[in-house]
Amino acid sequence: MKFTIQRDNLVQSIQDVMKAVSSRTTIPILTGIKMIANEEGVTLTGSDSDISIESYIPVEEEDQQIVDVQQSGGVVLQAKFFSEIVKKLPLDTVEIEVMGQYQTVIRSGKAEFNLNGLDPAEYPHLPTIEEENVFKVPTDLLKTLIRQTVFAVSTSETRPILTGVNWKVEHDELNCIATDSHRLAMRKAKIELGSDASYNVVIPGKSLNELSKILDDNNELVEIVITENQVLFKAKHLLFFSRLLEGNYPDTSRLIPTEKKTELELVTKDFLQAIDRASLLAREGRNNVVKLSTLEAGTIEVSSNSPEIGKVVEEIQSGKVEGEELKISFSAKYMMDALKVLEGPEISVQFTGAMRPFVIRPVNDDTILQLILPVRTY
Amino acid sequence: MKFTIQRDNLVQSIQDVMKAVSSRTTIPILTGIKMIANEEGVTLTGSDSDISIESYIPVEEEDQQIVDVQQSGGVVLQAKFFSEIVKKLPLDTVEIEVMGQYQTVIRSGKAEFNLNGLDPAEYPHLPTIEEENVFKVPTDLLKTLIRQTVFAVSTSETRPILTGVNWKVEHDELNCIATDSHRLAMRKAKIELGSDASYNVVIPGKSLNELSKILDDNNELVEIVITENQVLFKAKHLLFFSRLLEGNYPDTSRLIPTEKKTELELVTKDFLQAIDRASLLAREGRNNVVKLSTLEAGTIEVSSNSPEIGKVVEEIQSGKVEGEELKISFSAKYMMDALKVLEGPEISVQFTGAMRPFVIRPVNDDTILQLILPVRTY
Repeated sequence: MKFTIQRDNLVQSIQDVMKAVSSRTTIPILTGIKMIANEEGVTLTGSDSDISIESYIPVEEEDQQIVDVQQSGGVVLQAKFFSEIVKKLPLDTVEIEVMGQYQTVIRSGKAEFNLNGLDPAEYPHLPTIEEENVFKVPTDLLKTLIRQTVFAVSTSETRPILTGVNWKVEHDELNCIATDSHRLAMRKAKIELGSDASYNVVIPGKSLNELSKILDDNNELVEIVITENQVLFKAKHLLFFSRLLEGNYPDTSRLIPTEKKTELELVTKDFLQAIDRASLLAREGRNNVVKLSTLEAGTIEVSSNSPEIGKVVEEIQSGKVEGEELKISFSAKYMMDALKVLEGPEISVQFTGAMRPFVIRPVNDDTILQLILPVRTY
Repeated sequence: MKFTIQRDNLVQSIQDVMKAVSSRTTIPILTGIKMIANEEGVTLTGSDSDISIESYIPVEEEDQQIVDVQQSGGVVLQAKFFSEIVKKLPLDTVEIEVMGQYQTVIRSGKAEFNLNGLDPAEYPHLPTIEEENVFKVPTDLLKTLIRQTVFAVSTSETRPILTGVNWKVEHDELNCIATDSHRLAMRKAKIELGSDASYNVVIPGKSLNELSKILDDNNELVEIVITENQVLFKAKHLLFFSRLLEGNYPDTSRLIPTEKKTELELVTKDFLQAIDRASLLAREGRNNVVKLSTLEAGTIEVSSNSPEIGKVVEEIQSGKVEGEELKISFSAKYMMDALKVLEGPEISVQFTGAMRPFVIRPVNDDTILQLILPVRTY
């Protein structure tokens, strides 16, 4: 293998596939990046066997030559060293040449690195995915869907299925749900499926987080292919594979209350800041708990108390207070997580009593819903 | 105590004194910030008993009212909570009022915090310093002096005196020296002493680092007062006290070679980048060691070799190569540390043999010198 490449493109590509490379792997070759050059371009692959990422650098793009391949071939190079070296090379172009025994020379200006490489044939194969049913989602919508749900997955391995986000596809609608059993995040979106296929899968939260980091902010379409145990996201010059979690995701629909006894409308930003302040003194106390009480005349009170440190009380005007009086306690962290991902300047909070889960959603928007279980303090 | 204050000024002042507050102190009241208000303004104090910082907020500055003191008094508040609370208050002004038992109310808009405070009379007194001999250094020069020496102090407590920077003042010259016994940094500067006093003290590296962070980048004069066991830096509205290290600093003057057998002149930036690249593969090997060899025709070679990973070789043009041929090995980290603080586009490196300390300094500048001990590899 021998080629010359624009350094910026190589740096970007390495950075993308590095997202899948883990230094804590039991398969030594997976600490490396596989690089294959042929007459069409250079393909890099990184994998931790849960997530696999393939990045493709074409010979030409927009009439600009990016790669000049003098000899096809391939090698696997230690990801950590390869990425640091390429970042620090002196010139804008890099020459990479594989000699005997996968000894690899990386040359730029008067700097010359010799790295011990490995045989690319020993690198595990990526899953083969039959692209029967593909659906497409614009990149920015996909990133929003992930951001609005993935934070609510469980970080505990006691119920592994809850560490993933449940994606349900049916009737041209994608429904994403995450819960750690103390709170739940749900977001729906219309998609064009082009078939009557339906899916109900669970994608690891970690995979979605990494995918979100790699995708640029634009509205180009990402193709999504779901199989029995894998999901593939195809963006421009990029393939992102993730395994799916095995097992049945709990039926969350019955968790969501259908009635309401108290309803508040609040300015999202003001409410978020008040909770943030109240949480300053709650953090040290019982599990970061703040208290919300309805007062008279459309006012609500947010408060928190840590006997050793002090207490905080703040009043907020509510645009609308309907229904029963209420005193309720909940985790400030869960509330802030939920408020941060809700779009729209005003939110509606719907309670069905101090001990029942309550719902937060933007006013006039039923595509997104956040649910929080209160904490018993009274 | 009761006063109203501009939040930004209070935030800045808290941030400054927080630099001296440690959560790992054996004196509980030192986890707090002392705040005293009188008709002239508000004074905040933080201390970890090694470093003490006093920040003063005047009632008025540049015809703008900053503080409105309704009642003099004082309190000590938990630094961590006080700083987080003030940062997150909703309005630009803050009202602070101390009630009975040092219960302190912090009010801004509709948010009201009650913090348990302590009696300021129980807060340790700052050292009293007789301001007999004061010398003045512009802030930006002081920060440069610190930056160019403090990185070379020892991080090991086996010889505590080496964790400080040796400041010697004599004949209108300040000489700052730091060494960890593997490398040495020295920087001299002319100062106006206004007396024939002379000093030879050792200031903890940590104190100088914190001082440097607090000082703004400007050329206002900082007053420096040195006593037997304390040093005081006085900047605008700010007092910074540090204890001095006890013991005699080693005589470093005989470490610095007076002759040279090989001399190179190099472009600082190119040399730094080449060392940085060579260190990528050295990091994993013996103690981050790179090798430098003189070649023919004014060329030098920087190289490094880690048998398991690979090797790197780079040639650099030297503006001047005089004297004997040389092969020498040294720590890439020490060399990069030294090159990063040397000002000037070109440096001169002067060797007296492969096993002797060598000197790096800017071409045509003898106010700064960096010295590195080589590593035996041949």
